[in-house]
Amino acid sequence: MIKTGIIGASGHTGEELVRLLSKHPKFKITYLTSEKFKGQKLSPSLLGATDIMLESFSPSKAKKSADVFFVALPHGTSMEVVPKLLGGKKKVVDLSGDFRLEDQAVYKKWYKKKHTSSNLLGKAVYGLPEINKKAIKEANFVTNPGCYPTSVILALAPLLKKGLVFEKDIIIDSKSGVSGAGKINEKANSTWENDGPYETRTPEHTPSTRYTKETNFDRVDESVKAYGVAVHKHTPEIEQEASKISKEEVTVSFTPHLIPMNRGILSTCYCDLKEDLNTKEIIEMYKKTYKGKSFVQVLDEGNYPETKNVLGSNHCHIGMKVDSRTGRAIVISAIDNLVKGASGQAIQNMNLMCGFKETEGLKDVGLVP
Amino acid sequence: MIKTGIIGASGHTGEELVRLLSKHPKFKITYLTSEKFKGQKLSPSLLGATDIMLESFSPSKAKKSADVFFVALPHGTSMEVVPKLLGGKKKVVDLSGDFRLEDQAVYKKWYKKKHTSSNLLGKAVYGLPEINKKAIKEANFVTNPGCYPTSVILALAPLLKKGLVFEKDIIIDSKSGVSGAGKINEKANSTWENDGPYETRTPEHTPSTRYTKETNFDRVDESVKAYGVAVHKHTPEIEQEASKISKEEVTVSFTPHLIPMNRGILSTCYCDLKEDLNTKEIIEMYKKTYKGKSFVQVLDEGNYPETKNVLGSNHCHIGMKVDSRTGRAIVISAIDNLVKGASGQAIQNMNLMCGFKETEGLKDVGLVP
Amino acid sequence: MIKTGIIGASGHTGEELVRLLSKHPKFKITYLTSEKFKGQKLSPSLLGATDIMLESFSPSKAKKSADVFFVALPHGTSMEVVPKLLGGKKKVVDLSGDFRLEDQAVYKKWYKKKHTSSNLLGKAVYGLPEINKKAIKEANFVTNPGCYPTSVILALAPLLKKGLVFEKDIIIDSKSGVSGAGKINEKANSTWENDGPYETRTPEHTPSTRYTKETNFDRVDESVKAYGVAVHKHTPEIEQEASKISKEEVTVSFTPHLIPMNRGILSTCYCDLKEDLNTKEIIEMYKKTYKGKSFVQVLDEGNYPETKNVLGSNHCHIGMKVDSRTGRAIVISAIDNLVKGASGQAIQNMNLMCGFKETEGLKDVGLVP
Amino acid sequence: MIKTGIIGASGHTGEELVRLLSKHPKFKITYLTSEKFKGQKLSPSLLGATDIMLESFSPSKAKKSADVFFVALPHGTSMEVVPKLLGGKKKVVDLSGDFRLEDQAVYKKWYKKKHTSSNLLGKAVYGLPEINKKAIKEANFVTNPGCYPTSVILALAPLLKKGLVFEKDIIIDSKSGVSGAGKINEKANSTWENDGPYETRTPEHTPSTRYTKETNFDRVDESVKAYGVAVHKHTPEIEQEASKISKEEVTVSFTPHLIPMNRGILSTCYCDLKEDLNTKEIIEMYKKTYKGKSFVQVLDEGNYPETKNVLGSNHCHIGMKVDSRTGRAIVISAIDNLVKGASGQAIQNMNLMCGFKETEGLKDVGLVP
Repeated sequence: MIKTGIIGASGHTGEELVRLLSKHPKFKITYLTSEKFKGQKLSPSLLGATDIMLESFSPSKAKKSADVFFVALPHGTSMEVVPKLLGGKKKVVDLSGDFRLEDQAVYKKWYKKKHTSSNLLGKAVYGLPEINKKAIKEANFVTNPGCYPTSVILALAPLLKKGLVFEKDIIIDSKSGVSGAGKINEKANSTWENDGPYETRTPEHTPSTRYTKETNFDRVDESVKAYGVAVHKHTPEIEQEASKISKEEVTVSFTPHLIPMNRGILSTCYCDLKEDLNTKEIIEMYKKTYKGKSFVQVLDEGNYPETKNVLGSNHCHIGMKVDSRTGRAIVISAIDNLVKGASGQAIQNMNLMCGFKETEGLKDVGLVP
Repeated sequence: MIKTGIIGASGHTGEELVRLLSKHPKFKITYLTSEKFKGQKLSPSLLGATDIMLESFSPSKAKKSADVFFVALPHGTSMEVVPKLLGGKKKVVDLSGDFRLEDQAVYKKWYKKKHTSSNLLGKAVYGLPEINKKAIKEANFVTNPGCYPTSVILALAPLLKKGLVFEKDIIIDSKSGVSGAGKINEKANSTWENDGPYETRTPEHTPSTRYTKETNFDRVDESVKAYGVAVHKHTPEIEQEASKISKEEVTVSFTPHLIPMNRGILSTCYCDLKEDLNTKEIIEMYKKTYKGKSFVQVLDEGNYPETKNVLGSNHCHIGMKVDSRTGRAIVISAIDNLVKGASGQAIQNMNLMCGFKETEGLKDVGLVP
Repeated sequence: MIKTGIIGASGHTGEELVRLLSKHPKFKITYLTSEKFKGQKLSPSLLGATDIMLESFSPSKAKKSADVFFVALPHGTSMEVVPKLLGGKKKVVDLSGDFRLEDQAVYKKWYKKKHTSSNLLGKAVYGLPEINKKAIKEANFVTNPGCYPTSVILALAPLLKKGLVFEKDIIIDSKSGVSGAGKINEKANSTWENDGPYETRTPEHTPSTRYTKETNFDRVDESVKAYGVAVHKHTPEIEQEASKISKEEVTVSFTPHLIPMNRGILSTCYCDLKEDLNTKEIIEMYKKTYKGKSFVQVLDEGNYPETKNVLGSNHCHIGMKVDSRTGRAIVISAIDNLVKGASGQAIQNMNLMCGFKETEGLKDVGLVP
Repeated sequence: MIKTGIIGASGHTGEELVRLLSKHPKFKITYLTSEKFKGQKLSPSLLGATDIMLESFSPSKAKKSADVFFVALPHGTSMEVVPKLLGGKKKVVDLSGDFRLEDQAVYKKWYKKKHTSSNLLGKAVYGLPEINKKAIKEANFVTNPGCYPTSVILALAPLLKKGLVFEKDIIIDSKSGVSGAGKINEKANSTWENDGPYETRTPEHTPSTRYTKETNFDRVDESVKAYGVAVHKHTPEIEQEASKISKEEVTVSFTPHLIPMNRGILSTCYCDLKEDLNTKEIIEMYKKTYKGKSFVQVLDEGNYPETKNVLGSNHCHIGMKVDSRTGRAIVISAIDNLVKGASGQAIQNMNLMCGFKETEGLKDVGLVP
């Protein structure tokens, strides 16, 4: 059993790591940190998972207590902590957005802050195992993809790789459950980047302080809304990684929506085809591309993914259709944002970094109904 | 059109009053207050309802601007404001819990604070029109019942009045949507008494600060829990009013539960019968008792209420069954907590106080589906 | 009071007509039909709305009993019934899809059946009052728009009218609550066109009979999925009406999604701008275009619509943003699919046809929370 | 790996068995039956779980293919099948209600049908391992408890065993998610006994055929209702097992409610105390009683269970309070109805029957959020 630390264990992704690692056959949780809840137990849903208590982060204690680390801190905080863990034979998967973008200027533009560990930018392997498996296996430092980028890149990679779609004309309309927003009350310890439902209105008109929290039940239930329109910070991450796969510069319009459910992301991607292909042909191409990838399920023609079918699992379901009338391919993918979109994928990465099978400890299928 | 003021217009019950009064044929909104949002417009769901802006409360401005007042402030605040509105020919319906209990000591015990206008205790008419219509018509000061007490008293009144059940052995198990908790972020301006989901845990074990807010979507969705077990402050209100109807001292066990929906209360009441009655007989008795009461619908045998069927309406649906095996009557009632349980009933009261038909402006039936 | 008949009163749109008309100051329900439930009362949520019983449709009885008719039958059935009501001074609003498309061949292609009253095609006025008010006022026969087309055309009309976007390159991603699917169990009496969640899979792979119904709670809750991808029959309706407004042939990719809520449609529309406009400019243009239209609310910059804010109301909220990076305008609209998307709009049309104010009986704002 | 068969693998409990067994380290699925879907694959949420196809049930094929059997058929069907599997060294856990009641007359009264394998009544061990562990270990035939009885008996056992409450005066108010109703469309292959939302109305008044299915999303969402009032068939099961524990005859009033969520049962139990005990004392007694029971978590004073905290897990959380004012103990328990209330508990039983640790393959904690 490998001694394992989770830095930031009281946010959504931190608790999800505890949930998943507590039944993992190879990793043993030995170190859990939380600045806000140091000295305390975990949440009641985790009763029975582990007896390790939350403590304040200490680099020396951390390195003594564990050999591999999952860093589940908010962006901005992670960049302060990760450098203290790297080195020696320690292995680190960082779940924040701090090390995904390779260009410091792009980071500043979209994250609205200066990067304080810019020397590390570009040093982490982008941890999407279906694309970068080989590099991940050899890495000690992996940056875990964002939830939306995971769903989008898996949906588009086969088309982009073969150059079958116009790279500058891709529209992505995503729908997410509420957990993507992180734990609202504890910014400091949550990770999950606060991708959440901001900016649905400006202060001048209808001050957000008027309302209950944007993610309060009575705001979310029986409603749907767009947020972060044209400014969501997963946009440059999608473009960066899609461009690498395509070898052309990719530009996307990306619009996330908040819908009344806890978990799950569905991304509907609209691409203009360069060639005259039919649905059957692109499905076959996808099946070939993803053959042997345990966590990607390409659905047969006429079937479309439902987020429920991957709830609690590390799977990504992909379905598609060519609309011959408009010359577009519509590719739709579903993931659980906290598993394949965060903590599950982080474990999949760590499995590879440690020489295990990537499916180790990740055998759950969808919790239905 | 009667000039109408709403004191505390930015909480849930305040906004619900705006929603309902904006289509009322007899009342015209002329004065709206909010300490937190003075100078601002109402929420976007109220676009098109009224152009009146929110302003800070001023007793003299209030009395100049309106002739009738709905006070939709939190308990504790209302007792400071109501005395400044009473007098002259002004009419006041107070939606808080401040004037419902007649005994200062009982108030202190359950509300955990001293009453600062105790001279007014017992001066307001308890505004349940199906029981107190005559007194309400003659009143200038009405205290609007709590949401749970409304659902419970309407369910029990016919049995209590006839002395058919053991008064000391009544169990009430209620289920409520989230809006009963008020707007979490704005204690000062919300009313609705924060009946909400408190006390589901103590700080020692699993600090509530660990979590997102108790009413955050990811806490409420796909879950149900009890709260305020044996300490909810609607308990003495139920007992006080039930005892008046029964002419015996009534004691109840009352347990509210939070379920994943926005609006609605279902109260399941368990009563031990003193006599051997069957379902048919008590349904007929209920139908007779509530004949001519426009807002109470007694369901036929074999039919049970669903909160959805009264969503957005001022109706109360009641269904029942005698379990001859155990000698119990099980009476179940459904209301919309923000309408019949608060703002709709307040308007029903004001209709009566102003000499209008009680149904005026309250003609909505359930918004289904 | 105008004597009013509802043909097909037991489906979702039929019951919604009863709900709305029961509080309308000018229309009085005098005739209700249902083939399946003739001789019976309405649903329990409508207790108190009307005492009229359901009866079997008879053209002569209908004409004797009422002067205006709302036909809320499924497509395919409506085309048999409407011809029997037209004529004399009777006024008819048909809520089905049978008379929206003007071209018989287009109807056959998308609705997969032959039109049996093709002589009436093109004879009904398309009942979108914000666009066609004058023609509606003079009409005796109005075809009520589909729910998705209502949300889309109101979102796009100002841009299309001014020729500001490329007409062949519009992508519409819509999200709908479950009520859009009609009442699953009673095809014959529901209308609402069964726009519902079909085609999420083919029989070969995972037979739909394996599952509970597509709209069963345990299929919909905590999930989102696309349906009708590239084949939804609202597509040609959107294109037909958008082309009339634009005076150019408009082509759209339209993808509806089913999300876990009862009511509401959010349409996110992606348009390539022909000119370099900013967000402020197009919002001002929209505000000017919709000035005086009581039911359209154009939101200020930085605000985006939420379906909850129009729940139960006839309003349409529209928000937008120009993404200068990609040269696209993203316009988002929200409606209640059963009100502005069906029965409310039908009443708005009938108000105009009868010479009333279009807002008569439709003063509700959003039921929040 | 033990060869394992699931008879009735396409209902909710059957699919849940597949989900849980597909990651179990000791059992290997070798045989799956479904009469309706023979020759077909499992549902898409189970993609990746197993490649075994569904086939028609054959006793000889079954016995050749597997050594242990989970029978997940509806009551009435199970009694035909189980006798064909018993014998030799085969082990059977039956999840239906057919073998839980020991008295044929009681079965007939509550299940409304004659038992056709009455010779087997009383032969199966009642599979509640926290109570009957020793007998289960030695059994070849176990009848798996109902979902509600599991939640209720675990909540009451410590009080009953010590004789601390009046046995004839227990009231149980339970709240369940929708999955308890089974898969509506496929009676034949589902199990889960159709405990579901029946009887909320009689045909005379408002025919259920008027509506969409009782479990359709638009019926359940934003609503709560009681069902099976005083006639639910889990009542005699609770009384039978509670009486065994108490050694006195126990009588209960049991009222289940349907609430808008997929999974989970919360049972609120009201008991009249014979002695003057406080909350602290009974919590300590419960903690002592359940010490070493891996799946029961007794919460500290001031904490109450939430169904969400056990979602997808085999845990039961129990919280309680003594209301000294009324002399009642209120004990509240939460389980996942498809795991501890059905398939998880079935595996826990089979683990014991096969000599494994009872927690084997059941290490999941609650899926939160």
